[in-house]
Amino acid sequence: MGELLRSVDIICAKRDGKNLSEKQISTFINEYSSGNIPDYQASALCMAVFLNGMSPEETGHLTRAMINSGDVMDLSSVPGPFVDKHSTGGVGDKISLILAPVAAACGLKVPMMSGRALGHTGGTLDKLDSIPGYSTAMKPKQFASCVKDVGFGMTGQSEKVVPADRKLYALRDVTATVESIPLITASILSKKFAEGADALVMDVKCGQGAFMKTREDARALAESLVNTGRSLGRRVAAVLTDMSEPLGNMVGNWLEVEESIACLKGEGPEDVMEVTLRLAAWMLVAGGLEKNVLQAEERCRQSISDGSALEKFRQNVQFQGGDLKKMDAADGTARARFSQELKAEQAGFIGSIDAFAVGMAGVALGVGRNKASDNVEALAGIEMLKKTGSSVSGGEVLMRLWAEDKEKLSAAAKRLEGAVSIQASAPAKRESLILEEIPPA
Amino acid sequence: MGELLRSVDIICAKRDGKNLSEKQISTFINEYSSGNIPDYQASALCMAVFLNGMSPEETGHLTRAMINSGDVMDLSSVPGPFVDKHSTGGVGDKISLILAPVAAACGLKVPMMSGRALGHTGGTLDKLDSIPGYSTAMKPKQFASCVKDVGFGMTGQSEKVVPADRKLYALRDVTATVESIPLITASILSKKFAEGADALVMDVKCGQGAFMKTREDARALAESLVNTGRSLGRRVAAVLTDMSEPLGNMVGNWLEVEESIACLKGEGPEDVMEVTLRLAAWMLVAGGLEKNVLQAEERCRQSISDGSALEKFRQNVQFQGGDLKKMDAADGTARARFSQELKAEQAGFIGSIDAFAVGMAGVALGVGRNKASDNVEALAGIEMLKKTGSSVSGGEVLMRLWAEDKEKLSAAAKRLEGAVSIQASAPAKRESLILEEIPPA
Repeated sequence: MGELLRSVDIICAKRDGKNLSEKQISTFINEYSSGNIPDYQASALCMAVFLNGMSPEETGHLTRAMINSGDVMDLSSVPGPFVDKHSTGGVGDKISLILAPVAAACGLKVPMMSGRALGHTGGTLDKLDSIPGYSTAMKPKQFASCVKDVGFGMTGQSEKVVPADRKLYALRDVTATVESIPLITASILSKKFAEGADALVMDVKCGQGAFMKTREDARALAESLVNTGRSLGRRVAAVLTDMSEPLGNMVGNWLEVEESIACLKGEGPEDVMEVTLRLAAWMLVAGGLEKNVLQAEERCRQSISDGSALEKFRQNVQFQGGDLKKMDAADGTARARFSQELKAEQAGFIGSIDAFAVGMAGVALGVGRNKASDNVEALAGIEMLKKTGSSVSGGEVLMRLWAEDKEKLSAAAKRLEGAVSIQASAPAKRESLILEEIPPA
Repeated sequence: MGELLRSVDIICAKRDGKNLSEKQISTFINEYSSGNIPDYQASALCMAVFLNGMSPEETGHLTRAMINSGDVMDLSSVPGPFVDKHSTGGVGDKISLILAPVAAACGLKVPMMSGRALGHTGGTLDKLDSIPGYSTAMKPKQFASCVKDVGFGMTGQSEKVVPADRKLYALRDVTATVESIPLITASILSKKFAEGADALVMDVKCGQGAFMKTREDARALAESLVNTGRSLGRRVAAVLTDMSEPLGNMVGNWLEVEESIACLKGEGPEDVMEVTLRLAAWMLVAGGLEKNVLQAEERCRQSISDGSALEKFRQNVQFQGGDLKKMDAADGTARARFSQELKAEQAGFIGSIDAFAVGMAGVALGVGRNKASDNVEALAGIEMLKKTGSSVSGGEVLMRLWAEDKEKLSAAAKRLEGAVSIQASAPAKRESLILEEIPPA
């Protein structure tokens, strides 16, 4: 008796809680990609996986099958090690813009492929596009040169990379099978590995402003990523970080570039720096440049204080067509046409700021998108003058909103009603944003 | 907040183990029937139902929604009570042919809609079609007259009855979601109730020759049928019967008609009579004609001994176009062109006869079908001269096979290799074929 390779037998095996073989998984994904297995069989399998799970080995087979469905980035002309970072998405999350030059300054090669804003979460590509002249559209050869010469490159995902994921994700979206840990794992890892990363650091965000709302779900995803990476012979580290309040003081495209530059100058907000340095440190560990994460973190911090990370950033801007002169001139001055202030209704201490509400206010201002075809505004956004723990007097400005038309301002202000809580006594000092860390297995 | 009625929300709720509301279920089935919900969403829901189950109330809602997807038989011109019997399918199962006239002779109205042979199980319609002149194709009005005048009518399912089941079954067949208790329950009950039955007796067969292989699965289906019937306000009784060995001595279309006539004359094999009389008795109880099943069984037995059941059978044959003269002349004489005997290789006692193997040998002979478009032979089949417990001498004939061409004989003989086990000592006397009984709730 050979293995059962008919699609219905594969669905049946997963339905009955059995482990699928590499051959079964690769057959199903190949045939689905090429249109020989219909959507109704793929959705039945996805639901069976959702409810019965997959082992790290199965998830590894699935990841490999998905990588094989399309093109794989050729970085053979560039010496490694290639390490990327990926985040499950947050509000005010500009970490990639700071971390990539830091990691490059420390000697890693970072072939970073990022996404666009969708829903309440921002997109790295939209932020970079707000730099005058900067382009994230590069041909594979250009991209390889950028990674080689600068140490990091910033681009988007090609349609030709992991087409099976694109097809499967569209199906999962309409069949209630998105939130499956093994399916999320294979989707993330297949894209990152197809794009040339040898090792990966995952920022799994947790809380109101994150895809994973609970600590348990976030931990399960983090463990799945690390274990699946191991089953594929790739080093994946995962860090659970808190995303109940927006990261940093800026939410916007150009506004977050400004804040990233400040961070690279050593003048960034504490929360952004804490998460950035720790993730960059894990990249050095995953890439084999350091063994101890605290030593690695010290090396990253050094790249900020000696200016080498900022220098990498500016080299990258230049390589990717950005105009440094215009960028420097825009710093602190380029803002959308209209603004509105949000003031404290009473005196006291900020108890919490709802990251999801701030993210959705950003969408209303034009920072992000409700649907993939929406346009974004470079200069719209939110400056947060107060964060959790700050003391405020009545009438003091909490946030400043920027938009290219006035209606967007009032729509955003409406979304922010009740998003900032003010309480009589100072809240307990906020603990570290680093909730848990899982080293590469 | 109203109920969630988007198809993806309905899938999501069942995925998360929630009970679906009547409105959610009827919306999904209506929209699926009318083509507004695609197959890939329906298959995801079926898999979620397969793995998370449905309560009797949900299964009732599903049954009702499926009934409403098509025509409902109008028997308002006929006085009831209307009681039907349904079997999950077996080998040598000619019970409907005997039970319908018995129940009619006792005063029930039996609007029986049956199926055709598929796989190893036989089909009542194929058996009846082997009676010279007999037609199971009737218009609804004719059928109602037949039920009214004779007390029972035998026909097939109209395409217009429960079209949702037809569509859903085809999808379940290719997405590994057939063997779901609530989906099977709704499929069976929706058809039976749409066809005019007020009450129903289910013969849930159990064992090697049955759809349900284990006692636990068979019991779960039986309980689901009875409880769902109750949630719909209909009386459903279920009887678990053993199907490890073929029922009776004949497997074939005309051969089983002959055996049925023998049963109606009081000359039938013990196993067939035991199951038939008990199921007919439960029909009398479900229909409200009797309270006590043993008394009901006595009344059924009486209809055999006084000849009234046989008379009903002959009335029905005449009503449905059968030629009684030709039928009587064929009795004991009409056989396919070629025959072959299967002999005992050693002396001893029959330890077991594999019902599944006999059913598949029947398919090879032309009794049944591998796929729905295959033709069947009226006169092909198997006569079993020995059954479990019989003593045999070496070389004695165990079975006689009949087919219209010789190749089919050898194919069938091959399928029967090892199907009959012969042992040195007499096996323990076979217990009752009635394994469990669940009265209407």
